[in-house]
Amino acid sequence: MYGYSESKQEYLTRLRRIEGQIRGLQRMVENDNYCIDILTQVAASTRALQSVALGLLEQHLAHCVTQAVAEGGGSADAKVREASDAIARLVRS
Amino acid sequence: MYGYSESKQEYLTRLRRIEGQIRGLQRMVENDNYCIDILTQVAASTRALQSVALGLLEQHLAHCVTQAVAEGGGSADAKVREASDAIARLVRS
Amino acid sequence: MYGYSESKQEYLTRLRRIEGQIRGLQRMVENDNYCIDILTQVAASTRALQSVALGLLEQHLAHCVTQAVAEGGGSADAKVREASDAIARLVRS
Amino acid sequence: MYGYSESKQEYLTRLRRIEGQIRGLQRMVENDNYCIDILTQVAASTRALQSVALGLLEQHLAHCVTQAVAEGGGSADAKVREASDAIARLVRS
Repeated sequence: MYGYSESKQEYLTRLRRIEGQIRGLQRMVENDNYCIDILTQVAASTRALQSVALGLLEQHLAHCVTQAVAEGGGSADAKVREASDAIARLVRS
Repeated sequence: MYGYSESKQEYLTRLRRIEGQIRGLQRMVENDNYCIDILTQVAASTRALQSVALGLLEQHLAHCVTQAVAEGGGSADAKVREASDAIARLVRS
Repeated sequence: MYGYSESKQEYLTRLRRIEGQIRGLQRMVENDNYCIDILTQVAASTRALQSVALGLLEQHLAHCVTQAVAEGGGSADAKVREASDAIARLVRS
Repeated sequence: MYGYSESKQEYLTRLRRIEGQIRGLQRMVENDNYCIDILTQVAASTRALQSVALGLLEQHLAHCVTQAVAEGGGSADAKVREASDAIARLVRS
């Protein structure tokens, strides 16, 4: 069980909606839609993905990292470093 | 015909691959994969989407904006402003 | 003369304000301010820098790239590619 | 004392270097440097600022958030939410 497990259905719904947006992008390309309209839709999909990432991250901090700290031992440091690396990948992507 | 029209098949292939990545994310959530592994995959999908956007934008500048400038008249200014707004949405997303 | 030349004073004013924000960050660190307050200020400085970049870019497209296209010859392609590379650096930073 | 306190001198050095980069940008604008060269330097300053933010954030998680969790009580939840909001501001800036 991870931080996001209680919101699993919500994440699946959001990811299916993003999948629909990506299929919509394919239709726009197939139908020769205007470049700028496609770009607007790409930016919307990117933001939706980032929003999923921020939700997962908050629940990861609230559950997995918090639990590692509460249990003590050396694993808390490793969890904080791992989460920080994930944050860096998000900020730089 | 727009800037990306000659590379239409390439864009469709890339978007189908991104659609596959998003379905992969749904499987990861369904199978209770580790949050950090899901976040790594979200960052990869985001980068793939940004890469599609940058390709579309370059071809838009090289064809649509360039053509508006070559044709003269007032439409070049409007095209530059429209492209700049699209760039701002990408930089801020 | 470049695209931004007519707005030179405006850019200098904005960059001096950003310089002041960076000095403000140094004071916050020196005075042991709370990490989250420093992070809020870092995000504001980053956004101000991005806003300067987007302004420069729009004026670059409107003047330098447009002029290269109007002059014809091979330089327009090189200018579009150069601008696209600069946009990619902004989107990925 | 906060997470970054032990690395205070390092952060001050990095922020002074960024201040120098911003003054360099002012000189570039004053000297009518080429737009694309200015944009390259803006992207470098933005990345340097983001790098400072990621460092502060990791130390915040490792010290302030971890300490709140270890102390128990309701403050850990508030700290996690506050950190998540700061992460969202960074990802979206």
